[in-house]
Amino acid sequence: MYGAGDVRVEEVPDPVLQEPTDALVRVVRACVCGSDLHPYHSMPATAEGRPMGHEFVGVVEGVGSQVATLRRGDFVIAPFAWSDGTCEFCREGLQTSCTHGGFWATGGIGGGQAEGVRVPLADGTLVKVPVAEDSALLPGLLTLSDVYGTGYHAARRANVGPGDTVVVIGDGAVGLLAVLSARQLGAERIVLMGRHKDRTDLGREFGATDVVAERGQEGIAKVRELTGGHGAAKVLEAVGHMPAYEQAVGIVRPGGVISRVGVPQYDDAPVGFPSLFGPNITLTGGPAPVRAYIEELLPGVLEGAVQPGKVFDLTIDLDEVPGGYRAMDRREALKVLIRP
Amino acid sequence: MYGAGDVRVEEVPDPVLQEPTDALVRVVRACVCGSDLHPYHSMPATAEGRPMGHEFVGVVEGVGSQVATLRRGDFVIAPFAWSDGTCEFCREGLQTSCTHGGFWATGGIGGGQAEGVRVPLADGTLVKVPVAEDSALLPGLLTLSDVYGTGYHAARRANVGPGDTVVVIGDGAVGLLAVLSARQLGAERIVLMGRHKDRTDLGREFGATDVVAERGQEGIAKVRELTGGHGAAKVLEAVGHMPAYEQAVGIVRPGGVISRVGVPQYDDAPVGFPSLFGPNITLTGGPAPVRAYIEELLPGVLEGAVQPGKVFDLTIDLDEVPGGYRAMDRREALKVLIRP
Repeated sequence: MYGAGDVRVEEVPDPVLQEPTDALVRVVRACVCGSDLHPYHSMPATAEGRPMGHEFVGVVEGVGSQVATLRRGDFVIAPFAWSDGTCEFCREGLQTSCTHGGFWATGGIGGGQAEGVRVPLADGTLVKVPVAEDSALLPGLLTLSDVYGTGYHAARRANVGPGDTVVVIGDGAVGLLAVLSARQLGAERIVLMGRHKDRTDLGREFGATDVVAERGQEGIAKVRELTGGHGAAKVLEAVGHMPAYEQAVGIVRPGGVISRVGVPQYDDAPVGFPSLFGPNITLTGGPAPVRAYIEELLPGVLEGAVQPGKVFDLTIDLDEVPGGYRAMDRREALKVLIRP
Repeated sequence: MYGAGDVRVEEVPDPVLQEPTDALVRVVRACVCGSDLHPYHSMPATAEGRPMGHEFVGVVEGVGSQVATLRRGDFVIAPFAWSDGTCEFCREGLQTSCTHGGFWATGGIGGGQAEGVRVPLADGTLVKVPVAEDSALLPGLLTLSDVYGTGYHAARRANVGPGDTVVVIGDGAVGLLAVLSARQLGAERIVLMGRHKDRTDLGREFGATDVVAERGQEGIAKVRELTGGHGAAKVLEAVGHMPAYEQAVGIVRPGGVISRVGVPQYDDAPVGFPSLFGPNITLTGGPAPVRAYIEELLPGVLEGAVQPGKVFDLTIDLDEVPGGYRAMDRREALKVLIRP
């Protein structure tokens, strides 16, 4: 990406092993993330550009001398953050705060929207999965790189459990998979706020019991009406823009939780007496440590008990990536699968 | 209070029973709260003034026809919010969000810095205690009106438990009682941030293991040094000003909790990627439902296992209340006990 709206597909040198803890992965499937649309809207034009993509599954093509758990030919899922798997935060399941880790497409590490990626700290980062690279499960497995684990993180951080009433704000892939996750965790009533019918239909399939298409004050009133007047104890915010935050504050029940997984496109927000403090609202969430959830969520995907891969509704080649961004930006595609 | 710095003691009509659920309470002890200093600094001058005080213990002088659990002569603790005790929020222990409740000194209800108060919803609000009105325990019992329960709320909302490392920001009465509460809940290491030696000494007596007098970046560096470099998993913020919030963000460990009980003197605050979202910080807290904690904390006070009443270091008569505000404002007194 060279700037807002300016995505180019370029030939770059193949990645090579640099550290003994590296692995090289040939990308089998990658995708475009809703969060990639944030720079697609706002990135200042640059001369050098930056690599993109933080979700991929692929095959190990080579490993450094210190990589112990992987070998050439292994099929792997790459979480959207790389991590050593051994530091105090990784041991606690907060791999996004790994003291030695980092994120794709920054600091000299490539992005997943590519043919190959150098994976640092491969033992800690990658999860080996016993599937063939032409498996029909690839879309579902790819969601474990980010969107499924991120939706699940929203629900877990809000401590969603049996019988709960949950509101999910946002009908993008993360919001829909937050619905799926809330259902998996036992939520009884799941209100999905979104206004794209094809998406909210998928949300209903994933477990939403109600859909609210209205936004702003009208949406708040509708949700309050559906939740006995006081709002929902658990609100999962899967957008990241200020109106979604305000929406969350408007519909959360006193004593409740707002769990954010949409990357905030704001720094300051209301947290004073009228918004969070007075009604004892808890604000939680952040970048999902999806690495912590892959083992837990994998069986459901492998057994077909859940089909998170249904969020992909457009498949393209690497050359078509600029059009893939455009399609997602115009809401013509929910989530774009890339087949390099 | 007629405006910032303008506190007057005036004769007003005695309160009378208005609703069948009311009780009249003769105030035996009241006090000035750190939060009373907020309007003392910033309240615009008014012609009519407003009553003050939200912490008191006293003796029931009369009850309405529907009051079932109290009678004339009962000694009672009044929590800083009145509540029905029966609504869905009260039943969940969030009496500050009672659907029929409210706060003293607003909406026609008097304040505790007075000789007598009309108490609405007396059955839900007041807690009867078997002590005489000249008991030596009165200061400790009075802290159950607010500051002890508020410090305890901070610790409970942060889920403080055995072995925890906790940082308490603020050496006012609430901060010191947050220290006491964290110790009661089993915290192993308690760092108190405050720079008034007589107060932090009391904090050490209450259980603080370390005191950090530095503020701002220097204070943050010191706390990080004391907590292994990454900060503390549980930060209790008992001030309410923006610098205290920024301090909390600076010293909280990734994945940790900031629990606020200082009434925020700001609306907007940083909650974006660099502050809360990126490191998965949880922001929680609010006005303490002290009513929910009185039964739990009362035995320790009655048995003398804890001495929260030590936060009172100046006792005055009702006529001296303006001087009491001044003494607290100048930090000459930690907390002022009023003997009407």
